[in-house]
Amino acid sequence: MTRREFAGAIRLGMIAAMSGLDSATSVAQATNPQPGAAATSAPQLQIGALIYPRMILLDLAGPQTVFNLMRGEIHLVAKDRQPVPTDVGTSIAPTMTLEQCPAYLDVLFVPGGLEGTVAAMNDPAIVDFLADRGARAGFVTSVCTGSLLLGAAGLLRGYAATSHWYVRDLLGLMGATAKVDRVVVDRNRVTAAGVTAGLDFALTLARQIRGEEAARLFELVLEYDPKPPFAAGTPELAGAPLTDRVRRIRGPAIVAAREAAARAGARLKI
Amino acid sequence: MTRREFAGAIRLGMIAAMSGLDSATSVAQATNPQPGAAATSAPQLQIGALIYPRMILLDLAGPQTVFNLMRGEIHLVAKDRQPVPTDVGTSIAPTMTLEQCPAYLDVLFVPGGLEGTVAAMNDPAIVDFLADRGARAGFVTSVCTGSLLLGAAGLLRGYAATSHWYVRDLLGLMGATAKVDRVVVDRNRVTAAGVTAGLDFALTLARQIRGEEAARLFELVLEYDPKPPFAAGTPELAGAPLTDRVRRIRGPAIVAAREAAARAGARLKI
Repeated sequence: MTRREFAGAIRLGMIAAMSGLDSATSVAQATNPQPGAAATSAPQLQIGALIYPRMILLDLAGPQTVFNLMRGEIHLVAKDRQPVPTDVGTSIAPTMTLEQCPAYLDVLFVPGGLEGTVAAMNDPAIVDFLADRGARAGFVTSVCTGSLLLGAAGLLRGYAATSHWYVRDLLGLMGATAKVDRVVVDRNRVTAAGVTAGLDFALTLARQIRGEEAARLFELVLEYDPKPPFAAGTPELAGAPLTDRVRRIRGPAIVAAREAAARAGARLKI
Repeated sequence: MTRREFAGAIRLGMIAAMSGLDSATSVAQATNPQPGAAATSAPQLQIGALIYPRMILLDLAGPQTVFNLMRGEIHLVAKDRQPVPTDVGTSIAPTMTLEQCPAYLDVLFVPGGLEGTVAAMNDPAIVDFLADRGARAGFVTSVCTGSLLLGAAGLLRGYAATSHWYVRDLLGLMGATAKVDRVVVDRNRVTAAGVTAGLDFALTLARQIRGEEAARLFELVLEYDPKPPFAAGTPELAGAPLTDRVRRIRGPAIVAAREAAARAGARLKI
């Protein structure tokens, strides 16, 4: 942990200690938040989520639910104030532009969405924004292909990280060590696997920031006792034929991601 | 299964057979959908999701992701066209009003969000809408406290169903048999437990409508191999102290839900 990361962690520890999550009143605020309500007893956790066209809504919605229980002030940060279309067609309204985003964030978060991620990796304004805020943030985090964007911004050089299974190996092109795991914590970098890993990620982060008792309470409130109807959620579980089929379907997008990762790697002199 | 339900099931079977999900092209459309793109080879699955103020965004976003992979045409149906604020502060734009919603839906879906659910249970326009569309829909479905709304519309009389653990017992007041399970399928009623059960629910429904191979593919694409960081997702797992704490925090909202359920039960002459 660098001195800067350590300072961020200390600050977060202070916020956790000051947040008074032990009192029933505070937990009531946490579990039944009013949009826009500010915590009165502690500085609110500043969370910046980058949002971009063709992102996956669920990549954001899972973590956003937990961030909200954590009483985070969630900034949805985009290139401009236009509604951002997501994979499911529903658009999300940004709350601020890249320029308006606070310089210091307790948590910088990047969701995934393969084609949209590749477009963003090739966009200097977004990459520069992430490099700048990521250098100072308390935690630098992602779900799904969001880690490719962190990688393109040079934020995963020398870190272990993960991503959606079909692009995980591309992290190596940008100086990271790809790891097969649901959530990978390496110092203040916290990255997660594809789409549905967002909840595992956010509850892991909640424990680090708000403590284990609060995080367990969030798990109970969200009734998070998942029962996938099939055992097919990873290539290892699903087997080669189904995995090959997904790889074939996503082939052109994976190739585009590889090219973007290689370009970013050259830029970063990996 | 009544004759009407059977006719709905037949129609869905035909859609599944016609959807050509076996071809790589179709799966590519399914796994990499363009918002608003229409299936060319089959009538699109008509899915109506009721959205209402203070609903939980994640209750919708999980199922919506799977509905989208199923190439469903997802109507977000609300009382008016104003953006609908959700638990996390982010608003969702309805795509149509109650009156504009197609008379026949392959899937009628209701997300939860306790305070918002209670307000909707006490709103005759919403209850009448659900009773009307639910009487004809292929599947009548919910996540979390959404089942209380189905119950208030008389749609769960004589059915087994579930809900968020802290209001599950209220289903009995509206003529349903409350069941402790992640997803409860009783004829064409498919109800799910709290918030995060939305994915288990939607993949279960995907199997029924699109077949097991397609549903397994969706599970792999979404990398759904969850690893909750704690074993605290149900009252049984979390233990009495944490459970009592959540019940205390949510007490007033649970009381309001009980009153609304009792009123609905009286109206339905349960």
